[in-house]
Amino acid sequence: MKKIGSQTIQLENKVYILSSASIVGPKESEGPLAKHFDLCLDDEFWGEKTWEKAESKIIKECVNMVVAKSGLASQDIDLCFAGDLLNQCISSCFGLRSLNIPFIGVFGACSTFIEAISLGSVFIAGNAAKNVVCATSSHFCSAEKQFRYPLELGNQRPPTAQWTVTGSGSVVLSTSCDNSPYVTYVTPGKIVDMGIKDANNMGAAMAMSAVDTIITHFKDTGRTPDFYDLILTGDLGYIGKEIVIENCKKEGYDLSNNYNDCGVLIFDKDKQDTHSGGSGCACIATVFSGYIYKLLKEKEIKKVLLVATGALTNATTSAQGESIPGIAHAISVEFE
Amino acid sequence: MKKIGSQTIQLENKVYILSSASIVGPKESEGPLAKHFDLCLDDEFWGEKTWEKAESKIIKECVNMVVAKSGLASQDIDLCFAGDLLNQCISSCFGLRSLNIPFIGVFGACSTFIEAISLGSVFIAGNAAKNVVCATSSHFCSAEKQFRYPLELGNQRPPTAQWTVTGSGSVVLSTSCDNSPYVTYVTPGKIVDMGIKDANNMGAAMAMSAVDTIITHFKDTGRTPDFYDLILTGDLGYIGKEIVIENCKKEGYDLSNNYNDCGVLIFDKDKQDTHSGGSGCACIATVFSGYIYKLLKEKEIKKVLLVATGALTNATTSAQGESIPGIAHAISVEFE
Repeated sequence: MKKIGSQTIQLENKVYILSSASIVGPKESEGPLAKHFDLCLDDEFWGEKTWEKAESKIIKECVNMVVAKSGLASQDIDLCFAGDLLNQCISSCFGLRSLNIPFIGVFGACSTFIEAISLGSVFIAGNAAKNVVCATSSHFCSAEKQFRYPLELGNQRPPTAQWTVTGSGSVVLSTSCDNSPYVTYVTPGKIVDMGIKDANNMGAAMAMSAVDTIITHFKDTGRTPDFYDLILTGDLGYIGKEIVIENCKKEGYDLSNNYNDCGVLIFDKDKQDTHSGGSGCACIATVFSGYIYKLLKEKEIKKVLLVATGALTNATTSAQGESIPGIAHAISVEFE
Repeated sequence: MKKIGSQTIQLENKVYILSSASIVGPKESEGPLAKHFDLCLDDEFWGEKTWEKAESKIIKECVNMVVAKSGLASQDIDLCFAGDLLNQCISSCFGLRSLNIPFIGVFGACSTFIEAISLGSVFIAGNAAKNVVCATSSHFCSAEKQFRYPLELGNQRPPTAQWTVTGSGSVVLSTSCDNSPYVTYVTPGKIVDMGIKDANNMGAAMAMSAVDTIITHFKDTGRTPDFYDLILTGDLGYIGKEIVIENCKKEGYDLSNNYNDCGVLIFDKDKQDTHSGGSGCACIATVFSGYIYKLLKEKEIKKVLLVATGALTNATTSAQGESIPGIAHAISVEFE
């Protein structure tokens, strides 16, 4: 491994994505990507008594599924990197407590999935581990309850609001090659605070952190947008996506041809009343694990830049008048 | 690097702890280790309007201090690994948002400090970074408010209760040698759930995760307790410490000569009314950064096993009748 440019890590040793798995909730199951997910749930509780317990079950089953798909025995997995949006990352901690694999808790808000893969990739490329599992989850109901208002209140959502994805995505990373896509570069991001205070406009709060990480990635690697078949942000939604295109263009990077956002892809805005699009830790996690990974495996696309963004905020900081800082972590996934 | 035994990483490339810094609150400033801390605050707000903002300021200033002490320019720090106990790790995210260093958010409850150093060490040993800063914080008032009861209620604390340390500890890890102690092994821990549900008995909830990680570390490395001058857990307090000694003994590991706990060391139980001892992310962070690091530098001790434990819980899981799973991560720090 080596650091190149200002903040990118070139892995050198290939880190293969051996398998991926995805589980989504009922709303995502009615969206345009439904057929790509491994399991579509038809209710938000999945037999549990609370949303939090349901979210724990979703990430637990998603991790069991990805390990089974990898063909590895669970004792061959050296480490698990996971996190989520709930206070003290309880859906990961409780969902994965019976996993019996050393556990590294990660918090990057909605950037957690790519942060987890970044850490896992560095561990593997540096020979600290042979196989790791990375996972994250989010749940519309547990997130609304925690960050905004009780769902029972039936609050009207402004047009800038996004819809937290219910689901979990997971991958197994490995040193050993099984004809699989691999991670080549990791660009960890800086915290960027644009002073936005509207908890119903997360796309705008996070967009400039994505711009910062994307441009840094290009400068560090010497690549340009057209190197990639697809550049994909995590959950900026329609509003954040426009901000990214506009601000990258100002800096001389034209993303208009091959850039999209998972929050735009996962729901049908007109039919599903999801306003600015999907959000949550599970947004890029399910879209990558369910959809993009298959496109790579089938060589429909060969080079993807994944950029997950997180809004670093909670109910207390909002009440105390704080702004919402953003962060974005990027990885390159390739398959020649 | 290489993995040895079931879950330990041998770093091979030395990872030096170039500098450490510590800031503590008023209660810690009256405790037996007060003279070792870099800065002792005389009020809990430090000029801020809320406890959360005070905690953010504490970690921010602690990171500024450790970077200054390292002699490195801030642009020479490749990454920051940080986290804390507050929902969505806001004291780290807000405190460090102006740092302008790529940021990796970590959540391991009170195990966060050693988890952060573990990750930073692997990044450095694998050549993914040259210099990193690792930090964590906790605050008695923000923690009580969030996890238990409003302080204004004046609730009586049971004898098993621990006192969350107000403060922050930080280290700079580096490839380059400056006559400093270095990290040699990392043993990341598994989640261990003993079914304990009492949020006022965290020591008991976490102790068996420490036992699991300590014994695994010995088995993986072939070392025995007497190899170390000091074995130090994070914040098990008096009750958890006894559980560790007893259960390690059952497995044939006698810790009675050289084992202690930072929660026992940081307060004077009799004079300070702290019941079972200190706790919180900042407990091992301040005791290591303020006290143990100096003992190593001065070669009063040469080999330390640091084992930080975390209780993976929140107010919602307690209300939903869940138990409190624990986790413990360990590192060896040596200086010959």
